[in-house]
Amino acid sequence: MAGRDTEIRKDTVTNRCVVFSPARARRPSDFKSKDSANPNHTQSECPFCIGHEHECAPEIFRFPPDSTVDWKIRVIQNLYPALSRDLQLNPSSDGMVLTGFGFHDVVIESPVHAVHLSDLSPSEVAEVLLAYKKRIHQLSFHQSVKYVQVFKNHGASAGASMSHSHSQIIALPIVPPTVSSRLDCMKGYFEQTGKCSVCEMPVKDLLIDESTHYISIIPFAAAFPFEIWIVPRDHSPHFHEIDSEKAVDLGGLLKLMLQKMSLQLNNPPFNFMIHTSPLQVTDSLLSYTHWFLQIVPQLTGIGGFELGTGCYINPVFPDDAAKVLREVNLPK
Amino acid sequence: MAGRDTEIRKDTVTNRCVVFSPARARRPSDFKSKDSANPNHTQSECPFCIGHEHECAPEIFRFPPDSTVDWKIRVIQNLYPALSRDLQLNPSSDGMVLTGFGFHDVVIESPVHAVHLSDLSPSEVAEVLLAYKKRIHQLSFHQSVKYVQVFKNHGASAGASMSHSHSQIIALPIVPPTVSSRLDCMKGYFEQTGKCSVCEMPVKDLLIDESTHYISIIPFAAAFPFEIWIVPRDHSPHFHEIDSEKAVDLGGLLKLMLQKMSLQLNNPPFNFMIHTSPLQVTDSLLSYTHWFLQIVPQLTGIGGFELGTGCYINPVFPDDAAKVLREVNLPK
Repeated sequence: MAGRDTEIRKDTVTNRCVVFSPARARRPSDFKSKDSANPNHTQSECPFCIGHEHECAPEIFRFPPDSTVDWKIRVIQNLYPALSRDLQLNPSSDGMVLTGFGFHDVVIESPVHAVHLSDLSPSEVAEVLLAYKKRIHQLSFHQSVKYVQVFKNHGASAGASMSHSHSQIIALPIVPPTVSSRLDCMKGYFEQTGKCSVCEMPVKDLLIDESTHYISIIPFAAAFPFEIWIVPRDHSPHFHEIDSEKAVDLGGLLKLMLQKMSLQLNNPPFNFMIHTSPLQVTDSLLSYTHWFLQIVPQLTGIGGFELGTGCYINPVFPDDAAKVLREVNLPK
Repeated sequence: MAGRDTEIRKDTVTNRCVVFSPARARRPSDFKSKDSANPNHTQSECPFCIGHEHECAPEIFRFPPDSTVDWKIRVIQNLYPALSRDLQLNPSSDGMVLTGFGFHDVVIESPVHAVHLSDLSPSEVAEVLLAYKKRIHQLSFHQSVKYVQVFKNHGASAGASMSHSHSQIIALPIVPPTVSSRLDCMKGYFEQTGKCSVCEMPVKDLLIDESTHYISIIPFAAAFPFEIWIVPRDHSPHFHEIDSEKAVDLGGLLKLMLQKMSLQLNNPPFNFMIHTSPLQVTDSLLSYTHWFLQIVPQLTGIGGFELGTGCYINPVFPDDAAKVLREVNLPK
């Protein structure tokens, strides 16, 4: 905003480097998506809809487990998997090539085509979260699986090829770069201070909302305008340790954030990602890693500067974005 | 393509991690941009056009230096700079915030609105490259400038806010994350092998074209379909050491790659980035860093998996992409 100088920020969790450049900004409250993600208008049925189960790749499990035509959530294989569960893990001699072993699953969040995740009740969102938990638990028995990435793409420009509300789970035979970099950064902070950098995150002015077990904030070095983190209040390395009560609490806060984002930013395409810890961890790692859920509305593109440097330019200061989202009034 | 298994590749230059997933691919020759970057249709004049110089931020220099209404290239300040040349560099006590000191300039590549970089002759492209060189040389006298990122965004979805052909130069007070990570990776390779990992890059099957001083290839671990690297044959740490003869040679190969990409992929939005070395370097660093130019056509979006893990999913194997581009026949 007028009067604020450009700043370069690093954060103590992801080690990201972000240029906050208000000279390039509209007013924070004027940010709207031009590319509203309303993907359900043109189609009313798809392979993810109830009654079309035979058009999908094999099912892994469903909620409720004994349901038939009354299922609420289905976890299925991805028909076009990025990684293959049928390959043997077989690194090349120089370590530069691994066979593409892994799992790529889809979580169908509702049997009904036009229902979005944010339309579900907190306890229904909780069931989606508990489906993630159950699948991660299953995948953790595979010795070759090192990390499980849970993510959601909403809207075509955010990468969603199907408009029916779903999320994805990819199990990788490696600890991926973003995770290594985050763990290194958090380890450095822990070695300096003896504390977990997520537990110690600055919250003043950055808080959006809170629930019994979670807070939602704009991170201090948000790479994207209106990027939101939902963070467990208590130190917790793995998402899949969540229990049913916390899942309902998280479900409510996640729903609230998606509703506020949709209303304030004109239903933008978005991604969310659960940033958790590798499956096999040492005791020392457990003391400095802390999972969180990151929501990124797609309002600005990625250009040559970001591709070249790995730095991001964010026109909206985090405290301004937090204030805007804090003050969104949802219709009753 | 049919019959090829999914692979996970790391490269020895950028340390990127890429999943090659042909199950998700169309045939490599079927890749076309849906979002053709033809930004010049709706407008015929803009502030970058000849005769509109007074609508721009101040000029830094022009080519030819003594030209008036017959200028060919102008290097100007960005009217909405991401970083500010007027700030004092002043890190906070905890090192997590720097004032946003830096330079953000624009290179107007032609006085004519509808002329693209690939429409210029090799020696005209060379003049653009020599304008980069001259500006980097000027910026190198500022002690606080650690790295200079040259990049081009072509097409709105690649981040270009102006359709008139231009590129950008951002001078940073830090060595950015992508550069640190590349230097660490190349240092590791050098310590293991005594060689520069760019000099040693595998080229067989990955070569697209070559000139006297440069080769163009699809990198072994290309993160994006049809990502192209133009690499100096001889070991060379800094782009701005280029001389006039090499600039014409590079200009010809860059023009050829942009023409082939445009014809084969339906004029896609694209970015290119010059990956060079930090301005202040040690002798030991000079032995393992090697600049290159990376061209990324925007054919696939970035979704939650990429944002979450930092891994990329590329449906086209590099040797298939190289073969397609090698065989493009440009109209005479």
